[in-house]
This record gives sequence, structure tokens and C-alpha cells, in this order.
Amino acid sequence: MRVEALVFDTYGTLVDWRASVRDELAAFGRARGLAHDWDGFLADWKAGYRPGMDAVNRGETPWTTIETIYHRRLVELLAARAIAVSADEVEYLTRAWWRLRPWPDTVAGLTRLKRRHVISPLSNASFIGMVQLAKFAGLPWDCVITAENARRYKPDPAVYRTALTLLGLDADRVMMVAAHNYDLAAARALGLRTAFVPRPLEYGPGQTTDLVAEGKWDVVVDSVEELAAALDC
Amino acid sequence: MRVEALVFDTYGTLVDWRASVRDELAAFGRARGLAHDWDGFLADWKAGYRPGMDAVNRGETPWTTIETIYHRRLVELLAARAIAVSADEVEYLTRAWWRLRPWPDTVAGLTRLKRRHVISPLSNASFIGMVQLAKFAGLPWDCVITAENARRYKPDPAVYRTALTLLGLDADRVMMVAAHNYDLAAARALGLRTAFVPRPLEYGPGQTTDLVAEGKWDVVVDSVEELAAALDC
Repeated sequence: MRVEALVFDTYGTLVDWRASVRDELAAFGRARGLAHDWDGFLADWKAGYRPGMDAVNRGETPWTTIETIYHRRLVELLAARAIAVSADEVEYLTRAWWRLRPWPDTVAGLTRLKRRHVISPLSNASFIGMVQLAKFAGLPWDCVITAENARRYKPDPAVYRTALTLLGLDADRVMMVAAHNYDLAAARALGLRTAFVPRPLEYGPGQTTDLVAEGKWDVVVDSVEELAAALDC
Repeated sequence: MRVEALVFDTYGTLVDWRASVRDELAAFGRARGLAHDWDGFLADWKAGYRPGMDAVNRGETPWTTIETIYHRRLVELLAARAIAVSADEVEYLTRAWWRLRPWPDTVAGLTRLKRRHVISPLSNASFIGMVQLAKFAGLPWDCVITAENARRYKPDPAVYRTALTLLGLDADRVMMVAAHNYDLAAARALGLRTAFVPRPLEYGPGQTTDLVAEGKWDVVVDSVEELAAALDC
């Protein structure tokens, strides 16, 4: 196995989106004197993500960035709860997805891997969303590749193929790293190497999905630092 | 003027391609015991660059990366001089374009600009070529955008438009930085801000082009550090 580049799922795999966005929603609520179940609100918000992406992948809607999908869903959710907000507040809250805290092992692990490999996100985020997240969270990418470069969402093969083309590498020289089995399955179907880094608290203490490897992934480790060690970095 | 992102021409503007590639050719020659006019060889090599790109922009040839254009030209030039080389040697020499030394002000200037702006190359290089050059030269990009993302070469408007789309910014929030007037003219035609950083030694002591600003660019400075100062970074 001679991996030259590693591409990473980001939401969940590298950053704790749930606690980060929940804290922003709660701070918004406190500032407005709103008592609300922000965990439930966030779960509803996140639940709008996959249907919006699937509609793009099926060709039912034209290319739409994840920010636009989140923005629309947020407006709906706030309206359904009769929470009045300004356009600036909606924009600010939508961009909470650009201000996500990394897991404790993320930055140290990426920094080690970067010494001997090209490292890039391969996320369903927008390109600028992933760039701004990297600035916020200190993710030391060599470059940024997202679904926006392919105008399709993972697990559409076009996303992984776009990464291979831009990196100029054969599939077996590239490793997909993710906390989600579906993402690794799609990558492996195209010949990429795979590393599973489970994040059993991504969805909180009651998480039931992606707790264990559901395929024979090349590497299964508990952190990005362990991944660096597994690749002798 | 409220610039949020800066995009940089790279060959010539940020790195000294001429001295860097000439040194690699001369080292190759010494190792092979070949006496040769490597400056002339390099001038011929570089001269193959624009026609190859223009053929893509006119739609006469399908998308072809700059590496492929350089590779083909190198094979022709070596054959014309009856210099026998292996495929690996041709590959290694072609990738001399990934091993270019930055000008003395480049890394310090980019590092300052990065604190308050998104910084990216906007180069006619291949995507992976620009990624590997950044690793070699220590260019601290937030992301990498090249002609390959648009499958057209500068000054085709598609290249600048692709950058604006990926950055999610209106044109007047983005500044094109280049040592070449033609690049700035194309960027300004689309509404981008412009900064001219002349590099009077890019082509060596006898350089006759791009010595002075040929348009009313927003900023004209002699180094990337001066650009950072001009933008209060």
C-alpha cells in the first residue's frame, strides 16, 4: 500500500459539528431570551441536509451549495417556531457551519500526515465553507476539494473521481478517511484506499450508526493521530 | 475597497521559475557530462507554453494540463538536440516546474496577508502541480485554484469566474495579484481588484516586458510584503 494523498470527510470525521452548532444556537437563544430545545432544533436542521443533496444527485434540482440548503432549512425551521430573525442573523447562524471545533486529535494528526502526504478535505461542504472552516479550526490542508468541485454530492462517484483527477493520482494511491461507512464504500468501489475513524459521539451519547466498521477497510483506528502512526508518519 | 480574498499568479509573480529550472537543467547536464546552452534550452521550453494553452482556449485541443504541454515540448527539444533520456528522467525534469524557489518577499508577504484574507493561487499550472509547488516552496495557501478547475487557461474569463464562484464572492471583493499586465487586464474586465507586483528579473537581466504598469491597477508595489502593508496587514 503506497498512499500519496489522503482525502478526508470533515463534518463528524474531523470536527464536532453537533456541539459546535448547538452552542451557537444556545448562545443565540440566550441573547434573545428564548428558551428552546436547541438539540432538537439542530437535529431537525441537520435532517434537511441529505434530502437536499439527494435531489441534486438525482438531477431534480440544479447544483445548490450546502450553505443554501442549510439556509433554506433554517428559515423554514425558524418560521415554523415563530422565531423572528433578521436576514443578517440567519446568515450568521447558517455560517455556524464554518465555525466548528476540531476533535482533540485532528490538527495534530493532520500535521503529521502532511509531512509525507498531500492532505485535502473531500467534503460535501461548499468550497468556501471548507476554506473558512480550515481557517477557523486550524486544519492545515495542502488544498481544498469539495462536492462543489464536482457539482455533485458524496456518495456520487463524480465527487471521488474529481478528486482523483485534480490530484493526478491513480485511485490506489489515494486514501479516503471517514467516520461514515457509506462514504468509504463509495470510495472503495472506485478503487481508493479506505480508513475508518469512528466518531461514536458525533450524534451525541445515543448514537446508533457508524459505531463499527461495516466493510473491510484498509485501516480502522480511533483517531487521526493513530492513522498517522499506522502510515508511519 | 474591501478585499476579502486575494488570488495570485504564481510563476514569475511568486516564484523564480527561470533560475530554478535553469539550475535543474544545468545539474542534469553536469551529471550527464553534457555541455549545453541551458538558458537557451529553457527559453525554448517556456516558449512552448503559450501556444499549447491558446489551442485549449480556442477549443482546438481538449483540456490538457500544463505538465502535459511541458512534457511534450521537453521530449521534442531533447530529440531535436539528440539528447537521449529515460522516461523517468523526462518525468523528473518536467516536474522541475514543481520545484521553484520563491522570491525573498513571497512567503513573508503571503503569511501576513493570510491573517485577514483568504489567499489562493490562480495559476495556469495544474492543480496538483500548484499543490506540490506550495509544499516545496512553503506557500501558505488557504486553498488552491488553478486553470484546471475551469479547464481553460488565463486570460480566458472562465478561469477568473471559476475562482469567484468557488470563493463565493462578488468580483470587487477579490484582488488579482500578478507580475503580468495581461492577467490584470483580464481580471479587471470582470470587475476584480488588481495589484501589480513587477518582477523585472523574471526573464533575466534583459527583460523588456512587464517592467511597468500598463493599466490603472488598484495597487502597484514592488513586493508581496509591500502589498501586505498596502492592505494594512
